[in-house]
Amino acid sequence: MEDCLFCKIINGEIPCNKVYENEYTLAFLDISPTNPGHTLVVPKKHFKNNEEIDELYLTEVHKTVKKVGRAIKNGLSSPGYNIIINNDQIAGQIIPHFHAHIVPRVEGDGFKHWPGGEYKEGQAEDVAQKITNNIE
Amino acid sequence: MEDCLFCKIINGEIPCNKVYENEYTLAFLDISPTNPGHTLVVPKKHFKNNEEIDELYLTEVHKTVKKVGRAIKNGLSSPGYNIIINNDQIAGQIIPHFHAHIVPRVEGDGFKHWPGGEYKEGQAEDVAQKITNNIE
Repeated sequence: MEDCLFCKIINGEIPCNKVYENEYTLAFLDISPTNPGHTLVVPKKHFKNNEEIDELYLTEVHKTVKKVGRAIKNGLSSPGYNIIINNDQIAGQIIPHFHAHIVPRVEGDGFKHWPGGEYKEGQAEDVAQKITNNIE
Repeated sequence: MEDCLFCKIINGEIPCNKVYENEYTLAFLDISPTNPGHTLVVPKKHFKNNEEIDELYLTEVHKTVKKVGRAIKNGLSSPGYNIIINNDQIAGQIIPHFHAHIVPRVEGDGFKHWPGGEYKEGQAEDVAQKITNNIE
């Protein structure tokens, strides 16, 4: 897609630090890494987000995440990682081309989960029902 | 798996607020929600993490995430969500049964990305090579 940064990286118009590529996906280093080795996995076809991506590319992206995640653990001696997909602008998605972040974790990096809250009496049942009613 | 909280939820030994279920996956509300509607999607077969889960269940989990994510947007009027998979203890995985978090986002909730850093001269190339060398 014209004017899409990730499409330009996929097409080779803009350089990247590539870590893996196959027919359907490309994996490269995030230029602003949360930890060294922070990698992005993108489908080679343009899809805006998790609603738009088709099943073939969705499957291939997550197979590549699995493959690269293992290589990050082994290559960087990282004992674990977070997979993060920010879906839509409100969730922090900056580039509107579906991408999964793999963030390698190291002892003492200090990154924490967002905090959890709690439901009021009856609220969880109500919220669950609203979601269930909208399953297509 | 005996003594696995999520296996007990799947088997009906422990209750949950279910939002969706099919042959391979179960989706239910996180009991400590970052925002209301925070949902967990789990494979109905026990796999510890993203390295262990097989391709069938990996695909089915992400198909369910996509389906439930759309229902969260429509049912809760949420303009977007984060998908988060914490892989291994260092990454904040508390229950050792693979699971994807879907965190609905709302205006003004204040949750922020972990900060990004930068690579020193030559470091990105070195890190990318170490990952690439370990792709299996």
